[in-house]
Amino acid sequence: MREIIQNIKYPGFILKCDEELILDSGKSLDKVEIAYQTYGKLNLDKSNAILVCHALTGDQFPAEKNPITKKKGWWDLMIGPGKTVDTEKYFVICSNVLGGCVGTTGPNEINPKTNKIYGIDFPTITIQDMVKVQKILIDELKIEKLLSVIGGSMGSMQVLQWAASYPESLRSIISIAGALKHSAQNIAFDEAGRQSIMLDPNWRKGNYLSEDTKPENGLSVARMIAHITYLSDAAFQKKFGRNLQEKKDLSFGFDIDFQVESYLRYQGKSFVDRFDANSYLYMTRAMDYFDVSEQIIKNKKSIISNKIRFLVVSFTSDWLFPTKESRGIVSLLNSIGSLVSSAEVVSDRGHDSFLLDEHQLFKITTGFLKGIKS
Amino acid sequence: MREIIQNIKYPGFILKCDEELILDSGKSLDKVEIAYQTYGKLNLDKSNAILVCHALTGDQFPAEKNPITKKKGWWDLMIGPGKTVDTEKYFVICSNVLGGCVGTTGPNEINPKTNKIYGIDFPTITIQDMVKVQKILIDELKIEKLLSVIGGSMGSMQVLQWAASYPESLRSIISIAGALKHSAQNIAFDEAGRQSIMLDPNWRKGNYLSEDTKPENGLSVARMIAHITYLSDAAFQKKFGRNLQEKKDLSFGFDIDFQVESYLRYQGKSFVDRFDANSYLYMTRAMDYFDVSEQIIKNKKSIISNKIRFLVVSFTSDWLFPTKESRGIVSLLNSIGSLVSSAEVVSDRGHDSFLLDEHQLFKITTGFLKGIKS
Repeated sequence: MREIIQNIKYPGFILKCDEELILDSGKSLDKVEIAYQTYGKLNLDKSNAILVCHALTGDQFPAEKNPITKKKGWWDLMIGPGKTVDTEKYFVICSNVLGGCVGTTGPNEINPKTNKIYGIDFPTITIQDMVKVQKILIDELKIEKLLSVIGGSMGSMQVLQWAASYPESLRSIISIAGALKHSAQNIAFDEAGRQSIMLDPNWRKGNYLSEDTKPENGLSVARMIAHITYLSDAAFQKKFGRNLQEKKDLSFGFDIDFQVESYLRYQGKSFVDRFDANSYLYMTRAMDYFDVSEQIIKNKKSIISNKIRFLVVSFTSDWLFPTKESRGIVSLLNSIGSLVSSAEVVSDRGHDSFLLDEHQLFKITTGFLKGIKS
Repeated sequence: MREIIQNIKYPGFILKCDEELILDSGKSLDKVEIAYQTYGKLNLDKSNAILVCHALTGDQFPAEKNPITKKKGWWDLMIGPGKTVDTEKYFVICSNVLGGCVGTTGPNEINPKTNKIYGIDFPTITIQDMVKVQKILIDELKIEKLLSVIGGSMGSMQVLQWAASYPESLRSIISIAGALKHSAQNIAFDEAGRQSIMLDPNWRKGNYLSEDTKPENGLSVARMIAHITYLSDAAFQKKFGRNLQEKKDLSFGFDIDFQVESYLRYQGKSFVDRFDANSYLYMTRAMDYFDVSEQIIKNKKSIISNKIRFLVVSFTSDWLFPTKESRGIVSLLNSIGSLVSSAEVVSDRGHDSFLLDEHQLFKITTGFLKGIKS
């Protein structure tokens, strides 16, 4: 039995599932709950639904004001009335991913089997598991074909997994700043972040929530490491250069001297208030494990027969998910004979570009979506 | 009074100084000791001396077997009989930098004023301070003009500082994988590493050695972060790709799955045995503070009149000290009318290339040194 209820903690909804969810690992989860939000209206023939997939530290609130941070949603530049993903035309669905920490079943939630917080007993999940849960939600909303599935970074991984797993339920796919698989360098960055968390004594072998503490230091450093990879060298140069933070001279010490230090420390500290450390471990692991090429090739007949249109976008200064990786996606899709367009947007703002006001990205995406609609 | 004695802890020598050393910060150090090693023989007219400057985690043992790690010296490929820096022709000097942890005065040594370990009471040092100490050593060895000063990474910073501070004592300079100043991105990486150390509860506000502990976890993560920046994306791909570590399938957990994880954890763990965490803080801070352009311009007359020849080498895949930075060095040196040659060596091994068997680097450097000699 499945049931959709109003989310009492945050705006939006929760889909409660009663069946056992079998995961990629062979393990299972009971009573999965999926927290999601919607924008715009589903039309009568249910042909205007767009699923938005969030990145590592995103949530189900891409548009309007985020009810938790009270800031603009993470993709508010992209989604809203009259915007690229126009909520006056499209019905937008966004759910917190499996393993997340904003209401969907994850390591910071209660394990219904034990009535204790999952913590590190939460099973390891994959991008495929995340998408499996999204498919349950889409089924429950009685949407047979999504107009599009769109996402950047870890969102792109989910998008590509949708094409591999459920091509019959799609009309189009928009992959932004993504890759067919996580590179060795990216696994390395993830591992450094995870070690930072797991070596923090307050991690308590993953049981910190039961023991009423938090690995704040470890999570903060993990965020700092990751944040560097989101910007480009040029972006750092432009934003901060070697400017000093509210002082004229070097302090000759280890307090903040440079603006870039202040920025990084702030990024680290503010992150721990809104994100669960174990969730960070599970999601980075899901990204490490992601390697979708074979599944796409295996399902190529269905991808072709469903005439799925693909848009693959990358950014010139993105070194975390460089254009080389997007070229790999395009190349694979071409090799199976699918309908694929691509664009490399010129931007000096690094991986973060996908979240910023990149006019070219909006223009291309707007046109692509119109092409599907017509 | 100054005195050179045999180093009883390690092979090599120690220069003991009695005078007060005034630092860039305005603070001072008493009774500075400089641990150094030499290779080859100084000729009669003292014209064959080459000073080798080490990088962040290097030491005074670039050639032969390292007496501490029992592995080959960090630049054994470059320095030795018949090699690029040929110890049958040249007299090679290498000292542990000020603030280091292999015998030269640094935070892990006893403060002669208090008879306690310096720890975080050690004054903040700069690259200029490091070079000032090297100059004392060169003076004490009665060498008026160094045939060359050579170094990569933080070694390059010292090399450029030599040109700015003591041009009258130089015949040539070899800067490898260097920069005129530390970039904002590099300061950011340094800061993430420092925060990892300083947020480790075992750091004990810098007094860990007095309290008989070590911030091993923090230092280990700092090393992991740094190590990623030493390799290129291509090097990671070639070396590890997504290969699994001694297993056939994913473990669906947070233990080591991928070879790259095993490698990184090993790099982190083995580093804490041989390096002092506070030293790591002081050296990265010295790099952050480095910004030598103005000093070079200020001293340009002496650089020109002493006919110093410069060689500036970078590597195509180095993203920590990219060719762009070396171009900046060349451009500045050209703008003051100095004698500068440069080369960008094609290598896919990232910043680490300067320590590896890069044939083109050896060939260029050998020729450059011959040109000085003749």
